Amino acid sequence: MSRIVYVNGSYLPEEDATISIFDRGFLFADGVYEVTSVLDGKLLDFDGHAARLERSLGELEMTSPVTRDELLEIHRELVTRNEIGDGLVYLQITRGAADRDFAYPEGAAPSIVLFTQAKPGLAESPKAQEGMKVISIEDQRWGRRDIKTVQLLYPSMGKMAAKKAGADDAWMIEDGFVTEGTSNNAYIVKDGKIITRHLGNEILHGITRAAVLRFAREAQMQVEERSFTLAEAMDADEAFITSASTFVMPVVEIDGKPVGSGKPGQTALRLRDIYLDESRKAAI
Amino acid sequence: MSRIVYVNGSYLPEEDATISIFDRGFLFADGVYEVTSVLDGKLLDFDGHAARLERSLGELEMTSPVTRDELLEIHRELVTRNEIGDGLVYLQITRGAADRDFAYPEGAAPSIVLFTQAKPGLAESPKAQEGMKVISIEDQRWGRRDIKTVQLLYPSMGKMAAKKAGADDAWMIEDGFVTEGTSNNAYIVKDGKIITRHLGNEILHGITRAAVLRFAREAQMQVEERSFTLAEAMDADEAFITSASTFVMPVVEIDGKPVGSGKPGQTALRLRDIYLDESRKAAI
Repeated sequence: MSRIVYVNGSYLPEEDATISIFDRGFLFADGVYEVTSVLDGKLLDFDGHAARLERSLGELEMTSPVTRDELLEIHRELVTRNEIGDGLVYLQITRGAADRDFAYPEGAAPSIVLFTQAKPGLAESPKAQEGMKVISIEDQRWGRRDIKTVQLLYPSMGKMAAKKAGADDAWMIEDGFVTEGTSNNAYIVKDGKIITRHLGNEILHGITRAAVLRFAREAQMQVEERSFTLAEAMDADEAFITSASTFVMPVVEIDGKPVGSGKPGQTALRLRDIYLDESRKAAI
Repeated sequence: MSRIVYVNGSYLPEEDATISIFDRGFLFADGVYEVTSVLDGKLLDFDGHAARLERSLGELEMTSPVTRDELLEIHRELVTRNEIGDGLVYLQITRGAADRDFAYPEGAAPSIVLFTQAKPGLAESPKAQEGMKVISIEDQRWGRRDIKTVQLLYPSMGKMAAKKAGADDAWMIEDGFVTEGTSNNAYIVKDGKIITRHLGNEILHGITRAAVLRFAREAQMQVEERSFTLAEAMDADEAFITSASTFVMPVVEIDGKPVGSGKPGQTALRLRDIYLDESRKAAI
C-alpha cells in the first residue's frame, strides 16, 4: 500500500512526494526533524516534540511554516489516512529551496515534510524482553547535538558498525564518557541509582528522557544526571536507553560483555511499564 | 533563464528538478559532493575532483552510479546547455531513496544530481585585489572532514556569523589551531614560508590545495605542512585561502586586525596567477 505523505501543504501518494534538488535540507543538511510515536492511533508527547521543534528552529534562526495546532492536525490527518494504529510520524522542516550558497538565503520559504511509518505492536516489542546489545564507538558528531538536525550520517555509520559487530546499536564515547546512543539517550543503574548524562550541547534533549526521569522521580527512584564512563557502564547493575520510538529499552550487553546479570533489568522494565501507561493516558 | 540540470539520468529545467523526500541525502545528510570550476567553458582539475569523489564514496561504502567518463560528459553537457563561460558545476551523489532507517538500505540506487552556476568573470574577482576579512570561530564540525559530505550546516552557520560581523568568512579553530575556512583551506606566510595545516581527518583534502602546493614547490617556494595557531596567523606576514571556486584568495584581516600590511600579499597574488595560468592550460 502506498502511504499518503504531507509535503508543503499537500497530501500526496509517497511516489509523488518530492522536494527541489535546491532544497537546503538536501544540499546543506540545513533542517531539523522530530519523530512522534503513535499508539492506538494517538500521539505520544506531541507537545514535547512541538516544543523541541520550536527550540531547534530558533537555534538555527528558522521559523516554522505552520502553527502548533496546524502541525497537530497534519499529524492526525496522516495517522487517519494511513490507518496507523501503532507507528511513528516523522516531521522535517528545512530552510527551503534557494540557489546554492553557504549563507542563509533571504526570503526562502521553509519546506515541511511529514510521513508515517506503521509499526504494529510497537509497544510489545519482543526486544524489550530480550534486551539490546550495544558496542562503543568514538563520538565524532558535531558540537551542537542539542539541535535535532538531519546531520545524521555519523549515527548511521555507528548503526552500521553495530550491525556488522552483531549488535543492535552503538553508544558514543567522548573523552572517556558515554554521550548517548545513535538515536537514543543512554542510562545505567548502579546500587539502585539511575545515572544519565546531564543536558548540554553534547546530547539530544530527549523528550522521552524528560518524561522517564519525571516518572522515575515520582516513583521515588534515585536519579543522578551526570556523565558516566564506559568503564562505569560495563560495571553497572543495569543499562538501558530511551527514545520516542523505543520508549525504554534494556541494554544487556556492551562490547560483548554482559551488563549485570545479562538480562533486562528490573528498573528498566518497570520504567518502561510506567512510561507506556502514563504516555498512553496522556496521548492525544 | 531557467537552468538545465541533471537528475538521475535526465536533463531537466531546474523547476522540475526534484528528488524523493525519502532520499537519504535529505533525511540523513547521507551524501557527498564536489564543485568544479569552469573557466572559458573548460573544467579545472576535473580528474582531481573525480578522484576525491571516489574516495568520499568509498569511505561511506557507496558506489558511483556513473563512470568517470560519463561524469565528464555530464559536466560538459551542462556547461554547453547552460552556456557557462565562467562558473561552477556542482555534483552530489547520495545513497538514494529508501524508507527511513539509520542503517544503510540494501539495494537502494544512489541518486546523482548536477547543476551549474554561472559566475561571469570568476577569475577576475575584484576581491582578490582587495582581500578577504575573516573572523575566527570554534570548529564544531564532525570528526571526518576529509570526507566531502553535505553535512554543511556548521559551515553555513559560520558564514552567517562572518556576515553579521561584517567579514567575508570564518576560520575555524580547534584546540587553539586553525583547521580551515568554512569552504576553503587556510594558509599563512611567515618569513617567506608558506604554512598550511597537514592533511588528516580534521580538514578537507582540497584539490586546489594540492595543486597550489605543487606549484609553490615547483616555483622554489618554501612550504611547511603543519598546524598553526590563531596567534601565529595574526602575527603572519600574509594569509590566504584556496578553494575550487576562489582559487587563491588573500586574507587581509583576521578578527578585525590587519594581517601584515593589511593588503593582499605578494605570495598569495603570485600563487593565484600561477594557479590560474597552469589550471587554464590543463583545463579540459
